[in-house]
Amino acid sequence: MNKSMIRYLLSKLLLIEATLLLIPLLVAFIYQESITVVFSILGTIAILLAIGFIGIIFKPKNYHIYTKEGFLIVALCWVLWSFFGALPFVFAGQIPNMIDAFFEVSSGFTTTGATILPDVSVLSHSLLFWRSFTHLIGGMGVLVFALAIIENNKNSHLEMMRAEVPGPIFGKIVSKLKDTAQILYIIYLAMFVIFTAILWLAGMPLYDSFVTAMGTAGTGGFTVFNDGMAHYHSSLLTNLVSVGMLAFGVNFNLYYLLLIRKFKAFFGDEELRTYLGIVIVSTILIWLNVGGLFASAAKGLEISFFEVSTVITTTGFGITNLTAWPLFSQFILLLLMFIGGSAGSTAGGFKVMRSLIITKIAKNQVLSSLFPNRVLALQINHQPLDKKTQHGVLKYLAIYILVFIGLVFILTLDNNHFMVVVSAAASAFNNIGPILGTDKTFAIFSPFSKLVLSFAMIAGRLEIYPLLLLFIPKTWSKT
Amino acid sequence: MNKSMIRYLLSKLLLIEATLLLIPLLVAFIYQESITVVFSILGTIAILLAIGFIGIIFKPKNYHIYTKEGFLIVALCWVLWSFFGALPFVFAGQIPNMIDAFFEVSSGFTTTGATILPDVSVLSHSLLFWRSFTHLIGGMGVLVFALAIIENNKNSHLEMMRAEVPGPIFGKIVSKLKDTAQILYIIYLAMFVIFTAILWLAGMPLYDSFVTAMGTAGTGGFTVFNDGMAHYHSSLLTNLVSVGMLAFGVNFNLYYLLLIRKFKAFFGDEELRTYLGIVIVSTILIWLNVGGLFASAAKGLEISFFEVSTVITTTGFGITNLTAWPLFSQFILLLLMFIGGSAGSTAGGFKVMRSLIITKIAKNQVLSSLFPNRVLALQINHQPLDKKTQHGVLKYLAIYILVFIGLVFILTLDNNHFMVVVSAAASAFNNIGPILGTDKTFAIFSPFSKLVLSFAMIAGRLEIYPLLLLFIPKTWSKT
Repeated sequence: MNKSMIRYLLSKLLLIEATLLLIPLLVAFIYQESITVVFSILGTIAILLAIGFIGIIFKPKNYHIYTKEGFLIVALCWVLWSFFGALPFVFAGQIPNMIDAFFEVSSGFTTTGATILPDVSVLSHSLLFWRSFTHLIGGMGVLVFALAIIENNKNSHLEMMRAEVPGPIFGKIVSKLKDTAQILYIIYLAMFVIFTAILWLAGMPLYDSFVTAMGTAGTGGFTVFNDGMAHYHSSLLTNLVSVGMLAFGVNFNLYYLLLIRKFKAFFGDEELRTYLGIVIVSTILIWLNVGGLFASAAKGLEISFFEVSTVITTTGFGITNLTAWPLFSQFILLLLMFIGGSAGSTAGGFKVMRSLIITKIAKNQVLSSLFPNRVLALQINHQPLDKKTQHGVLKYLAIYILVFIGLVFILTLDNNHFMVVVSAAASAFNNIGPILGTDKTFAIFSPFSKLVLSFAMIAGRLEIYPLLLLFIPKTWSKT
Repeated sequence: MNKSMIRYLLSKLLLIEATLLLIPLLVAFIYQESITVVFSILGTIAILLAIGFIGIIFKPKNYHIYTKEGFLIVALCWVLWSFFGALPFVFAGQIPNMIDAFFEVSSGFTTTGATILPDVSVLSHSLLFWRSFTHLIGGMGVLVFALAIIENNKNSHLEMMRAEVPGPIFGKIVSKLKDTAQILYIIYLAMFVIFTAILWLAGMPLYDSFVTAMGTAGTGGFTVFNDGMAHYHSSLLTNLVSVGMLAFGVNFNLYYLLLIRKFKAFFGDEELRTYLGIVIVSTILIWLNVGGLFASAAKGLEISFFEVSTVITTTGFGITNLTAWPLFSQFILLLLMFIGGSAGSTAGGFKVMRSLIITKIAKNQVLSSLFPNRVLALQINHQPLDKKTQHGVLKYLAIYILVFIGLVFILTLDNNHFMVVVSAAASAFNNIGPILGTDKTFAIFSPFSKLVLSFAMIAGRLEIYPLLLLFIPKTWSKT
C-alpha cells in the first residue's frame, strides 16, 4: 500500500477544506458576527493549514496508486472533512457535542440533510451557511470537485473516480477524465447559480435563496428554518423547488447531451422516462390518498408533488407533518427513499437505473423459467446490457440489503417505533434526511446510533464499497 | 399447452383430496359430532368425487407435459385444494365466510398457520383436526405426496418436482425420482409418528398430540387452543416442541445420510451448521434482551428458544404475547422470518442455504472489488458453487424482494401500523403464521387483503414462480 501517497493526497484535501472555510468566514464578516464565531472558523482553518502543510512537506517517491488506495482516500476524505468541518460548530458552542456536530456535517457533505437540531435558529448566519455549503461541495462528490482542482498524477484519477461516480453506467462523454469532471462541474455550478437567481426573483430573500439552492443542487435538504419550505407560504416557491430538485436528480450526462443538441437521446433516455414516470404515478397515488387532509385539491397536489420530488431526489426538504399521513402514502415515500435519483446525478439511493435493471432481470428470469427455450435479451436504451453489468447490479443489491439490515439491526437497540427506525436508517443510508413516523429529528437517537448513522450516510454516498474497506482488517495488513 | 393433461391430473388430485377428507370424517364419528358437521364433510367429498370422476372420463391423448404445464398444475392444485378444503367449514357454519375459510385452509396447506379465527373453540374436533391435517399434507409438498401415489406417466414427474422442491440444492440421493419422493415421505411420516408418541408420553392428550405433531411436522403452526403451547403450562412439552420444530426445519436429504450412516457428511453440512448457529446466536441475543420480562432466567431462555425455533422453522406456534417485547427482539424474529428453514425441509422462507450463498457472494464481491487481481471461488460444503447457481440465487432474491414489496404495498391500504403490515406480509409470504406488533389475528385485514395474503402464502410455498405464472397473460395465450 502506498501510504505516503495517501498521506500526501489527504493533506492536500485538508488544505482545500481550509480554503472552502473562507466562504463562511466571509459570511460572518458580512453579518458582523461575534468574535467567538469568527475565531471558531479561523481556528479550524489554522488547524487544517497546520496539518495540511506538515503532510505535504515530504513528497511521495511513487505517485502510482491502485483501487484499494483510491477507495481509502475517498472514504477517509469524507470522514476527515466531516470531522474538521464540525469543529467550528463545537468551538462556537452552537453544537457543543462533537458527535452531534460530526453527524450534522457528515449529513451535510453526504448531501443527506438529516439534522440533530430541534431548532436551527441556534446557528449563526455563517455556520448555517457553512452547513448548507457542505451540500454544494458534497453534491457532485468531493472527489469530482477535487479532481478538477488538484494537479495530480494521471493514473490515480481513474481509481478515485470509480469510487465516486454513482450508478452503474457513466457514459464517457469526453475522452479525458479530468475534462469530464470539469464539464460536469460547470453544468452543476451554472444550474446552481441560475436556480439561486430564480428563487431570488420569485421573492425569496437572497441569503435564503443561496442556502435553499445549495440544498437543492446537492440534493441535500438543509434549510434556513425549522419548518423548511413551509416557512415561505408561497406555492410558487414550493413548485419551483419541486421542479428544481427533480432537475438535480437527473443524470448530468444527459444535460451534456442537451448542450450538444442531442435532444432525441435526451428525451428518449430510459432512465429519465422511468424516473419521471415514477414521480407522476407516485404523486397521483399520494394525492388521491392524502387529498382530504388539505384545504383544497390544488394544495394537496402541490404538497404531494413536493414530497415525492424531495424524497425521490433524496433531498429531504421539510414542508408538512407526515405523521398525519396514512400508511399507504408513507410507504410510497419509503419506497422512493430506496429508489433514489438517477445514476450520475447528485442524488443518493439505490438509483433509478439499478432499480430498472433489477426489475428487467426479474421479469426475464420469471419468463425464462417458464419458457426455457426462449432467448431473452435485456436492453437499456435499445442497447443490450452485458451479463457482467447485470450480475454486478444484482451483487450490489445483495450487499446493499445486507448492509441495510445490519444498520436497522443496530438501531433497533434504541427501541423506537419500527417505522421510525426503518425510515431513519433508509433516510441516512440513502442520503435523504427526514424520518417517517415521528415529527422529531435524529436527536432521539443515542450517541452510538448517531455515530453509526454518520458512517451509514458516508457509506451510502460512496456506494458502500469504499467505506466498507475501512472496516476490513485485510486493508491494513502488510501483505 | 396440453390442456387435457392438466384437466386430467387436476381431476385425479381432487379425487385424492376426497380420500383425505375421510380422516376428519372418521374423527367426526369418533367424537359423535352433529349431523351438520358430518354432512358438511360428506357433501364436500361428494362434490370432489363428482368433479373428479367427470374430469377423468376422457383420458388425454398425449401424456407429455412441459415446465409450463407442470408449474400450472402445481399452482392450480394448491388453489383448488384450498378452495374445496374450505367448503366443510362454510357448510358447517363454523367459518361462514368463504374468503375467511379459503384463507384458513390455504394457510393450512401452505403450512403457514396464520388464522383469521380470534377463537378456535368455534371449530369442532373433526374440522380442527382437518385444519391441522392440511399441515401434514402440505408439509412435504402436496406434489411430493401426490407423486408417491398417482400412477402416472414418467416424464411428467420431473416438471412438477421442479416447482415443488424448496431450495437451490436438492441432492439426488437416489437415482429415480419417484423412489426419492417415497423415501423422503417415509422419513417424514416416521418422524411424525415418533414425535406424536413422544408428546403423548410427555403428558399431552392424544388428540392434542396428533394436532400438535401435524403442526410441527408440516412446520405449520395451527394448534388446539387460542393460547397455543402456553395452554399446557409444561416446560417439558415446550422444549420438546422447540427441538421437534428444529428437526423438521433440517434438509431431509441429511436424514437419509444419517440412515446410510454418513455421519460426517451430516454433521459437517454447512447449511445445518449455519442454521444451528443462527438459532443459538438469536436465542442468546433475545434472551439477553427480554430476560427481564420473565419470572426466572430459565423461563426466559425457554421462551426465547421456543420463539426462535418456531419462527426460523416457519412453524409459528404461539406461546407468549410478543407485543411487550422490545423492538430489538422483534426485529430479530422478523429477520428469522425471512431467513426461514433449510432447503429441502418442510419449512418456508428464503431458506438458510440461499441466505448463506447471498452472504458469501456479497463478501466475495466486496473483496474482489478491492483486490481486483485475486481470484475468489465460492464454496459450499467444500465444493465450488457454479456461477449459474449463484446468479440464479441472486435473481431469486430480486424477484423475492419485488414480490414482497408489492405485497406490503397492497396491504398498506388497510392502514395498520407499519410493523403489523410488514410482519403480516412476511409471515404469510414465508409461511410462518403470527403477526408482530399486535396480539390480534389476520381478522383485522379487509377481505381483499385476506385474499391477497392467501395467494401470497401459496406463492411463498411454491417459491413464487408457479403462482406468478397464473397471473401472466402469456401463459394463457395460444402461441
